[in-house]
Order: sequence, then C-alpha cells, then structure tokens
Amino acid sequence: MRSIAILGGTGQQGRGLAQRFAAAGMRVIVGSRDPDRARDTIAAWAETRGSVAVADNLTAVTQSTVIVLAVPFPTVDALLSEVHDRLQDGATVIDVTVPVTFAGGKMTMLDVAEGSAAEHVRARLPQHVHVAGTFKTIPAHLLGDVRVSLDCDEFVCADSEEARAQASALIDLLPGLRAVNVGPLARARHVEHLTALAIAVNRRHKIHDARFRVVGLP
Amino acid sequence: MRSIAILGGTGQQGRGLAQRFAAAGMRVIVGSRDPDRARDTIAAWAETRGSVAVADNLTAVTQSTVIVLAVPFPTVDALLSEVHDRLQDGATVIDVTVPVTFAGGKMTMLDVAEGSAAEHVRARLPQHVHVAGTFKTIPAHLLGDVRVSLDCDEFVCADSEEARAQASALIDLLPGLRAVNVGPLARARHVEHLTALAIAVNRRHKIHDARFRVVGLP
Repeated sequence: MRSIAILGGTGQQGRGLAQRFAAAGMRVIVGSRDPDRARDTIAAWAETRGSVAVADNLTAVTQSTVIVLAVPFPTVDALLSEVHDRLQDGATVIDVTVPVTFAGGKMTMLDVAEGSAAEHVRARLPQHVHVAGTFKTIPAHLLGDVRVSLDCDEFVCADSEEARAQASALIDLLPGLRAVNVGPLARARHVEHLTALAIAVNRRHKIHDARFRVVGLP
Repeated sequence: MRSIAILGGTGQQGRGLAQRFAAAGMRVIVGSRDPDRARDTIAAWAETRGSVAVADNLTAVTQSTVIVLAVPFPTVDALLSEVHDRLQDGATVIDVTVPVTFAGGKMTMLDVAEGSAAEHVRARLPQHVHVAGTFKTIPAHLLGDVRVSLDCDEFVCADSEEARAQASALIDLLPGLRAVNVGPLARARHVEHLTALAIAVNRRHKIHDARFRVVGLP
C-alpha cells in the first residue's frame, strides 16, 4: 500500500485530504506537532474508512516519500525548518498552501517574494526533494465533507515532470477530480490567484464551495 | 436598439465581440485609428449578422455610453489619453485587457503598479465614468469563431454596482455565457491571473480554447 504523510492533517483541509486518500486505499500518516491531541481529534472523525495513523511531523516525513504541507501559509516556514534535514532522498513535497489572509474580515493576498507559496516552499527545501503545487483551489469546506464528490478540476504544477506525474496520480485517485497539468512551479502564482477568486465568488454569492472546471480540454 | 462601441474592434478579440454583440441585436460601433482600413477589414468578415458601423475612436465614444477597450494592454494608455475628454457623462468603460507578454515565446505577466489592468484603466479615466473589467478569460480565438457557443462563465468586477449590472447584462446577451459577479475592481487581478492560467493550459495541452466554469453556484 502506498503511503502519504499529511503534515497539519487535523485542520479542515488536512482532514479532508487524509480521509479521502485513506478511502482511496492509501496508508495515511497524519503529521502533527502534538500527536496525542491529534490521535484524539482523529478518533472523533466521522466517516473514516481505511488507514489513518498519527505521528509527530519528524517521524511522519521519514515514513513516506510523499509529503503534503497542509498547514496555513504563515506557519509553513517553521514546519519546513523542522523537517528540512529529515526528508528522504527523492521525496515529493506537495504544497497546498495559499498566501491569503482574512485580516479585518477582508481577503487579501500576501506578497510573496518568490512569486508564489509553491516557489516560497521550493526555496526552503533541499535540492534532493521535488516540489509540486496542487490542491490549492478546492475549498477546505468541501474537501472536509467526505461524502460529497469533488466534481471539479485541480491544477498541478511542479519543479519536475516526475513530481507533476506523481501529484496528478494523487488527484486522479479522488472521485470526481481531474488533474490539469499547468507546467512549471512558477504557474502556482496563477493558481493561487484562482483560489482568491473562488473565495471572492463564495463571499459575493454566499456559498462555500465554488470551484472550477476547465472547458475545452479533450 | 442599444449601442456598444468597441475600440480596437478589428483585432481578433474585438472582432469576436463585435460580431457576437451585433448578432445579439446591439448596434455595434467599431472604433479605429484608421476607419477606412477598418471598413475594408469589416467588409471582409464572414458571418456578420446585424449592425456593425465604423468610426474613428473619438467619434465612437461620443456615440455610445458603453465603451469596450479591446486593444492590447501596452497600447491602452495612448487610447485612453486620446478619448479621455470625450467620454460621455455616466458612460461605462469595459476593460477586457490582460497584462501579459509573449516575449521570447514565453508568457509573462507584466507588473502593473495599480495591481491589475482594470485598476490601471480606472486610474486613467475621469471620475464621471464607470469602469468594469470582464471578457478577460475567454480566448480571443474562440470569441472570433462566432459559430461556436462560448459554453463557459465570465467573471465581472467593477467600481460600482451599476457598472457590474451593465457588464453582466452584456455577458448574458451572448449564448453559452454566464456572468459571475466577483465584486470590486481590485478582483481583476485574480481574473487576469486566470487568463494566464488558461494560456498555460492551452500551451501545455496544445489546445486553443481553454476556459472556465464555476462549479458550486446555484
């Protein structure tokens, strides 16, 4: 059974990914700063099917070569410093963060010097790991409601063909989801703006699950 | 019959909008720097149904209170200076430009000091006109193929509720198109990134008409 480590897997987005990948047959390791609390949280999840284990973040990254960063963007630097030296050779790090804040009730994109959260993550990791950016535009609210089919497309960019293929395969594991390859990691800046657009649509239309489909793909 | 002036209406995007709005029953005035040449160009269009007239840009903006800027982003400043003093009171200017270049075969977004092309346009117009940003994500190639239904959503942002409603009504006139309101003009930056994403999808997948639908809207 293939494994996937989801760091920050007790948040809404992380929980949705963990439950959905477990249901798809993967061995999920939820990484947490506080594994005891995480175990209680996970025990309380409804509708979990399949295998979900818990570990501290450092242990989690030694147990899988696919690592999802499901933490809020402002906390990603601390997490990356923590795990930097323990990532396995050739591991793929999947960045799902989006640099938005909701200060004062207003959604704003943070200025990221590297151009995008995905490039920011790339700049903080050793060269021997790959980085892909994806799962950025699916609403956490929707991901977390594991009975609902996602029914949308998800964009994938990465620093290598191998990482793009790996991330695309993960996407295609989840029912209702189609992977759309958009090329190099620098394309993440457009995808992250798309998330901001989804949030704007949600707020304006008083819904919670705006997402996207590409029309015109064969 | 309602009128619409399309400045730069002989380019691929302008032609598609002109022909589609004419077919939808609007009186279209194509504005051009060189009306004689524009008249020859337009006479050669296939499949034109309805009313398409030609005028120089200055005359065009005095003949309609709905003005579409269908010129490449790098030329919009010159156009706005030219028409600035002739725009009618309460006119709505519809910015469809996207700040991308294809220098060296590589697509890059230009840095726009105001945050987006739409805000750039707003900053160069008198306060007595409204500005909406829309028709930014539909491929020019597809717009120009007037026999094809657009079959996608188009995002609308504007500096006033009135301009948003006006732009939305224009979108809803075109078969296969649905207007999605995303709020204030500053949201244009996300929409313009979406255009860049569509271009990336097109290039990566060797297609010409990638566009988007929002899933989750009632």
